[in-house]
Amino acid sequence: MLDPDASSTLIARMGALARTAAATLAISPDAQRAAALSQAAEAIRAARDTILAANAADVARAQAAGLSGAMLDRLRLDDARVAGIAAGVAAVAALPDPLGRVIDASTRPNGLALSRVRVPIGVIGIVYESRPNVTADAAALCVRAGNAVILRGGSEAIESNRAIHAAMVDGLAAAGLPADAVQLVPTTDRAAVGAMLAADGLIDLIIPRGGKSLVARVQAEARVPVLAHLDGINHVYVHASADAEMARAIVLDAKMRRTGICGAMETLLIDRDFADPVMLVEALQHAGCEVRGDPVEASIGEIVKPADPTDWDTEYLDAICSVALVDGVDAALAHVARHGSGHTDAIVAADEGVAEHFLARCDSAIVLWNASTQFADGGEFGLGAEIGIATGRLHARGPVALEGLTTYKWIGRGTGQVRG
Amino acid sequence: MLDPDASSTLIARMGALARTAAATLAISPDAQRAAALSQAAEAIRAARDTILAANAADVARAQAAGLSGAMLDRLRLDDARVAGIAAGVAAVAALPDPLGRVIDASTRPNGLALSRVRVPIGVIGIVYESRPNVTADAAALCVRAGNAVILRGGSEAIESNRAIHAAMVDGLAAAGLPADAVQLVPTTDRAAVGAMLAADGLIDLIIPRGGKSLVARVQAEARVPVLAHLDGINHVYVHASADAEMARAIVLDAKMRRTGICGAMETLLIDRDFADPVMLVEALQHAGCEVRGDPVEASIGEIVKPADPTDWDTEYLDAICSVALVDGVDAALAHVARHGSGHTDAIVAADEGVAEHFLARCDSAIVLWNASTQFADGGEFGLGAEIGIATGRLHARGPVALEGLTTYKWIGRGTGQVRG
Repeated sequence: MLDPDASSTLIARMGALARTAAATLAISPDAQRAAALSQAAEAIRAARDTILAANAADVARAQAAGLSGAMLDRLRLDDARVAGIAAGVAAVAALPDPLGRVIDASTRPNGLALSRVRVPIGVIGIVYESRPNVTADAAALCVRAGNAVILRGGSEAIESNRAIHAAMVDGLAAAGLPADAVQLVPTTDRAAVGAMLAADGLIDLIIPRGGKSLVARVQAEARVPVLAHLDGINHVYVHASADAEMARAIVLDAKMRRTGICGAMETLLIDRDFADPVMLVEALQHAGCEVRGDPVEASIGEIVKPADPTDWDTEYLDAICSVALVDGVDAALAHVARHGSGHTDAIVAADEGVAEHFLARCDSAIVLWNASTQFADGGEFGLGAEIGIATGRLHARGPVALEGLTTYKWIGRGTGQVRG
Repeated sequence: MLDPDASSTLIARMGALARTAAATLAISPDAQRAAALSQAAEAIRAARDTILAANAADVARAQAAGLSGAMLDRLRLDDARVAGIAAGVAAVAALPDPLGRVIDASTRPNGLALSRVRVPIGVIGIVYESRPNVTADAAALCVRAGNAVILRGGSEAIESNRAIHAAMVDGLAAAGLPADAVQLVPTTDRAAVGAMLAADGLIDLIIPRGGKSLVARVQAEARVPVLAHLDGINHVYVHASADAEMARAIVLDAKMRRTGICGAMETLLIDRDFADPVMLVEALQHAGCEVRGDPVEASIGEIVKPADPTDWDTEYLDAICSVALVDGVDAALAHVARHGSGHTDAIVAADEGVAEHFLARCDSAIVLWNASTQFADGGEFGLGAEIGIATGRLHARGPVALEGLTTYKWIGRGTGQVRG
C-alpha cells in the first residue's frame, strides 16, 4: 500500500497535468471535443477484443476472490456491452456544446457590456466502483463540457478500465487534444481515493458513482465539493382524487419496473380518503412486492407485514415497499419532509389545486404529478445523458448532465470605464 | 466558554427553527417577503436611537479593549449609517422576486411537462466580523430569496447586532412571517462558529463576511458548502495596443480609487511593447502609490522599489502595487494563472483580437476589457446588491446576489406516464 504522502504526490502530479490539459480543453472548438469523442467511440469498437480480454482477466480474478453474482454482473462485459459503451460515447459527442452559451447579458448605464458565459469547471474527479462503462461515460461527459477528468475506478475492474481508458486517450490524440485530459489513477490503492478527496485546489469537483458506502465515504471525507446523492427514499402519494387505475399503474411502475435504481419508490403514501387502498397494496403484492405497513390500520392492516419505525427511512432497492395511510396532502408532505431524501417524490391526484399545492411545497430535487418516480433520469429528462443525480442544494440538483459540468464567468467589455 | 457540545446543541436548535421558518418563507408570496423588508427598514429607522445607544456601548467596550482605528470605524454607526442600513434593506425589498422563475421548460415526447423552477436554498449561515450593517444587509438578501438565516456577528458588535436584529424581526412579524427566519446567535462564543461550520444538514450554505483570517478559517473548517473569496490578487494587463491615456486612467482607478477593497488591482502587467511604461509607474507614484518591480528592468528598474518573489502573490489592500513587464498576452495570461486568485482581471488594449484572446483564456470569475477592476461589485453589475463575491467554481461566481441565494427544483406534470 502506498503511504498517504506517496498518494498525495501522485494525485498532485496528475492534478497539475490535468490543470494544463483543462486549459487547452477550455478553449478548444466544439468540433474538436466532439471529434475526440467520436474517435474514442471508434477506438472502443476497434479495441473490442482487447477490452474483452482485459475484462475476462478482471472477472477471473473477481471470481477467484469470491465476488457475488450482482457485483460480477456489473463488472462483466460482452460484445453488446462494449458496443453500448461505444454508442454512449458517440451519443455524448452528438450533444450540443454546453460551452460559450450566454446566460444573460446587459449593458450598464456607463456603457460596460456585461455577460455571463458558460465555461468548464476545470478538473473533475470521478470515484467509482465495479462498472467499467463509467470509465467511458464519465470521461465523455467531462470532456464534452471542456473539463479534464481524473478517474479512479474499482480495483476489481482495473484491467477493463485501463483498456477503455486507452481507447479514450486514442480518441483525444486523434483529435489533437491532450491525453492528460482523461487520466486513470494507475494504482488500486485506497489511499489514492483519500488523496483525491483532500485535493482541494487540484480537483474542483468530485463525483462518486457507486453504492451507498462509497458515496457516504466521499461525502464524509471530501475537502473538495461533491455532487452526489446518498439515498433515494422516494414517495408516491395517492390523493383521494386520484384516478384509481392511474394510481395503480404509477405505483406499480414506480416500485417494480426496476427495484434497484435510485428513482424507485420506497414508500407509498395513501390518503385515508382514497377509495381503495387495498387494491394498491394487493397490486404490489401480486407483482411480487413485499408490503410493510401498520398492522392496526383498519383497511390494510391485515394484508401487510408489520412495519417497524426504521422502515420509513429505508431505501430497500428491492421488491419491498413500506405503505402508510395519511390524512390529507399536508400530512403526506410532512411525512416526505421527515423521512424523504430529497431525491424524487410524486403525487397522483385529479385535483389540480392539491397537486400544485404538493408541487410547490415538496422540497425535493424532482417533484412529479401523475408520473412515475422512475422517470428520474437525465435521458428521460431530455439531457441526453447523465453523470449522476444530485440531492445537494447547490450548483445542480436532480439529473446532472453537461450543464452541471460547467460553471460561468463574467465578461465585461468596456471603452475605458473607470469607477471614479 | 461554551463547550463544543453546548454550541452544537444551540446551533442544532436554531437550525431546526430555521428549517421550519424556511418552509414558510419558501411558499410565501413575493409581496409578503417584500413587505417584511419594507417594514424592517421602517423599524430600523424607528429604532435609530436604540441602535445608536447599543452601538455606543459596543464602541466604548471596543475602545477599552484597545481596538484599532480601522476596526473602530467599521464598528461605529451614526445617523447617516443607520439611514444607509435602512435604505439598503428597502432597496432589497424593491428588487424583483428571484423565486418561481422558470429556468427552462420542455414537454417530453411522452407528454411529461418538465420545468426547472427557482426555489430558495433553505437555511443560510452568515459569519461576519465587526460591521453591524451586515446584520441587516445579509438578512434582507436571504429573506428576499426565501431563505432563513442564522447570523453570527463579531463579539465586538453584539449590542448593535441585537438592536438591528430586533428591527428585522419586527419587520417579519409585521408582515406575518416567522421571526425564526432571521436568528442571531445569542452567544459571542467562538465555539458557536465551529458548530455552524460543522452543521451539515442543518445549514445549507455558509457565507463568511470579513477579513482574510475569518474566510480562511471558514474554508478550512467548514463541512457545509461555503461561498466566498479569500484573496483578490487582481491584475491589469496593459497591451502594446492600449491607448496610453485610457491605460493611465484605468490603472489609477483600479489601484487608487479605493485601495482596501477586494476588487482593487494589486499587480500591473505592462507589455514590453507598450510605448511608455514609465508614464504608468509614475502616474501611480504621483497618486501616492508605492510601486515594486524588478530593478534590472531597463525601462522602469530605476524608479521602482525592488520586488521580492512574494510580491506577485500578495494582496496589499493598500497603496502599494507590484509591476512586471511581460512579453505579450500569453505571458500575461501565464502570470495571472500562476499568481492570480481568480477574482477579477483586466486587459487594456485597442486590439480587439488580443482582447478577445485574453477574455477567452483568463480563467477568473470576472474578466474585463478596457474597464477598471473596481467595477467588481454586485451593484455595479446591476444585481441591486450583493451578499459577496465568490471565487469558487461551483454554484455562483463573481458578485453573488439574489439568484446566487436560490437553487432550483425539477417539476414534472404528467397525465399518468409510466416508464414501462
